[in-house]
Amino acid sequence: MSVAKTGKISPLDPSAAEPFYRQIYDRFRGAIASGVLNPGDRIPSARALTKELGLARGTIEAAYSLLAAEGYIQARGQAGTIVSPDLKPRTPVAAPMLETIHSIALPSFRPDSIMPFQMGLPALDVFPRKIWARLSARSVRAMQPSDMTHPAIAGLPALRVQIAAYLQVSRGIICSPSQVFVTSGYRHTIALIAHVVLKAGDRVWLEDPGYPPTRELLKHMNITAVPLPIDGEGMVVADGLKAAPRARAAVVTPAHQSPLCVSLSLPRRLALLDWASRNKAWIIEDDYDGEYRYVSRPLPALKSLDRDGRVLYSGTFSKVLFPSLRLAYLVVPETLVEQFEQTMNLLAAGSPQLTQAIITAFITEGHFARHIQRMRKLYAVRRDATAAGLESVLGQHMRIDAQPGGMHLILRLRGRRSDRRLAARMKEEGLFADVLSEWSIQCEEASALLLNFTNVESQRTAENLGRRILKLM
Amino acid sequence: MSVAKTGKISPLDPSAAEPFYRQIYDRFRGAIASGVLNPGDRIPSARALTKELGLARGTIEAAYSLLAAEGYIQARGQAGTIVSPDLKPRTPVAAPMLETIHSIALPSFRPDSIMPFQMGLPALDVFPRKIWARLSARSVRAMQPSDMTHPAIAGLPALRVQIAAYLQVSRGIICSPSQVFVTSGYRHTIALIAHVVLKAGDRVWLEDPGYPPTRELLKHMNITAVPLPIDGEGMVVADGLKAAPRARAAVVTPAHQSPLCVSLSLPRRLALLDWASRNKAWIIEDDYDGEYRYVSRPLPALKSLDRDGRVLYSGTFSKVLFPSLRLAYLVVPETLVEQFEQTMNLLAAGSPQLTQAIITAFITEGHFARHIQRMRKLYAVRRDATAAGLESVLGQHMRIDAQPGGMHLILRLRGRRSDRRLAARMKEEGLFADVLSEWSIQCEEASALLLNFTNVESQRTAENLGRRILKLM
Repeated sequence: MSVAKTGKISPLDPSAAEPFYRQIYDRFRGAIASGVLNPGDRIPSARALTKELGLARGTIEAAYSLLAAEGYIQARGQAGTIVSPDLKPRTPVAAPMLETIHSIALPSFRPDSIMPFQMGLPALDVFPRKIWARLSARSVRAMQPSDMTHPAIAGLPALRVQIAAYLQVSRGIICSPSQVFVTSGYRHTIALIAHVVLKAGDRVWLEDPGYPPTRELLKHMNITAVPLPIDGEGMVVADGLKAAPRARAAVVTPAHQSPLCVSLSLPRRLALLDWASRNKAWIIEDDYDGEYRYVSRPLPALKSLDRDGRVLYSGTFSKVLFPSLRLAYLVVPETLVEQFEQTMNLLAAGSPQLTQAIITAFITEGHFARHIQRMRKLYAVRRDATAAGLESVLGQHMRIDAQPGGMHLILRLRGRRSDRRLAARMKEEGLFADVLSEWSIQCEEASALLLNFTNVESQRTAENLGRRILKLM
Repeated sequence: MSVAKTGKISPLDPSAAEPFYRQIYDRFRGAIASGVLNPGDRIPSARALTKELGLARGTIEAAYSLLAAEGYIQARGQAGTIVSPDLKPRTPVAAPMLETIHSIALPSFRPDSIMPFQMGLPALDVFPRKIWARLSARSVRAMQPSDMTHPAIAGLPALRVQIAAYLQVSRGIICSPSQVFVTSGYRHTIALIAHVVLKAGDRVWLEDPGYPPTRELLKHMNITAVPLPIDGEGMVVADGLKAAPRARAAVVTPAHQSPLCVSLSLPRRLALLDWASRNKAWIIEDDYDGEYRYVSRPLPALKSLDRDGRVLYSGTFSKVLFPSLRLAYLVVPETLVEQFEQTMNLLAAGSPQLTQAIITAFITEGHFARHIQRMRKLYAVRRDATAAGLESVLGQHMRIDAQPGGMHLILRLRGRRSDRRLAARMKEEGLFADVLSEWSIQCEEASALLLNFTNVESQRTAENLGRRILKLM
């Protein structure tokens, strides 16, 4: 073995075909796989190894980056660099439910990067990966030179058609494919909207509490947030009319307010549309999870009521398929189509052909609609199981909000306990939690944890997780 | 048949599982495939068909968009909508050279969307598609839940390592993987740079003539261009020192000036670096095709001389792999790493995991380096063949610049002929041409065509294309 138990490394071979960084990587990997180095063992710092081997610092860093990227090692700041403590032989993640997990040949050590309760993630264990792999392989085999040129800026035409058809059926939105723009995610969508219809100094109504990236992005573009409170009917539109009637736009999450999960009531929807029409303002509808409602049929989108073309509708594949696809979409009023085409052309040059082609096939062949149906049922079950499990263990310390839909639970902490402090402790223990107070701008929300339930597969799991939280309180 | 020769369509079936737009699409496709409708035949306008069938306009538009997207029909403005005139049974595109073309099962009609001379395209006929398809299928089969979560914002760690290693070997750039940011293309790169280091009102040196999207994007962000002329040594740095010594940045294409193809001389490189260091200005090096030099070894990047951390280096996979990947990268000085991480996080959320994983495998297994080597040789041959072919037919009317590298030829028109008028005529005939005068800001460049040669596979082809151009003069 060329890496000793102390992490010492024997001289490298300058005549080898492999570059130095790769040789170093291979040696550590080998030492870990063979048990010479064990989980938790400390290895030399990049600085020390640089000195020891007389190589460029960048070479050692390249090797360490690769090892860290693949989960073999972890930098622990002052505590130095160690072999990942949670390395274990690779096992299938969670229980395969709708699809059997395809057996694969990959490095046999790799930590699972999904933290329980991580916000925004769909149930990844039950995604039909075999079907997805089959459609992907077919798409890439069918690739012709004409599929390799610059893709259409606004998105693959066939995908835009499918999205328009889907929105009509499932969200009540009537639009032509030319109004649909494929983007690389919600942030890209919002940045694009800001570039087209907003300018520095403009004021925009935001929900308070609300999704933090929206306000961060607008702030970066020197746009002023006008925070509006949320009550049982959603955003309090009347407060906006009082505080900033001439604002240029409003960003809303009408299906399930993010993060409080209330739906925007019909009177509020109409008031918002009326304000936008009379003031030539824009409504940005963030319909991030409108599909997921469990107590009744999903509500039609606000956009479906938009007679005057004031609503820009933002949807995403991150929640109904998976986030690493980096594909989302935006529906704009007809009057804005040309401006969006021009701005999109300026700022980027379309999304990858392959991922778009795979989704198009997935939708066209009916898998998309089926998957959403299945997830709607599964999430209703997982939500109840997670709530019951956490309630049984943590009921004395927390109260869980009743909600009609969404992908997370709101656990309100009793007493004066700080959600931030608890979440910080949870993170140290590998339990992800978002906290309500960090989603607030100026409203004084009680302390609460926001916990995604879609990857909690049973009440027993939820109880176990609850017990881990209890220990930290 | 349910579409008559006149384009009349029989009533649709409301009880069918297929939505209306799909039924309409299928009928037209069937009519075209079976020869009931022929290339050039006129079909009813969406408006007329809407009336005729009593359906929503959006339904008809969805069907027509899909038909147009797949190349079956073309909208011709006032002249109405017709069956695509260039529909023909699908045949392999150009001659397979390094890889045999994989046989595929796709719709049997589809026009070839690659126009001869289209700028910025690599030789798509010789891309190793079989290898690519194999690596892609493997990547997607290996996909685990942890590959489906939000991808690392700055790029797949293993890909950043590979890019850093590649840049060291092939472009002389020493950087750590943490300085490498994966973006979705050159425009995304430039927009990101502008968000981090520039602000509205700043002045930036630009090459004149130069790549139009750079100046359009900066203009959109209210940044003022300071155009600098190009001579035999590249950008005239002395003019910048005179006109705007306190500019915040300079955008340059040192390897082969875009579009004039001259290389930035060493004295100019040093003068530029000196200016940037003394004024704390930034140099944005657009190394879009630095790999492609045919008369000698590729020059090291300007970034390789950057001792004071003033150069932001922009590279892309569009030219060495293919554009529909939508993947590029940016190397930033260490001092800017944190700001880029933050801004990237605000404005987008990373590139797709799949395309990054495929490229990583392609590089790791040596295909990337081999492909570039092969293309370098092939392009030298195609450049000479294209120049010889065009020269022999058009020599009286044009003069071809001698150039050490790049992917296009510059055909300077003799006399006072307008490049714009000729290019417009060429486009009508399906021949793409960029024109030098449109790349100019205020310099008075002679009329010239910019013709990509990478997809012209022989001197004979070039002669035929030359004859088509000759007819238009």
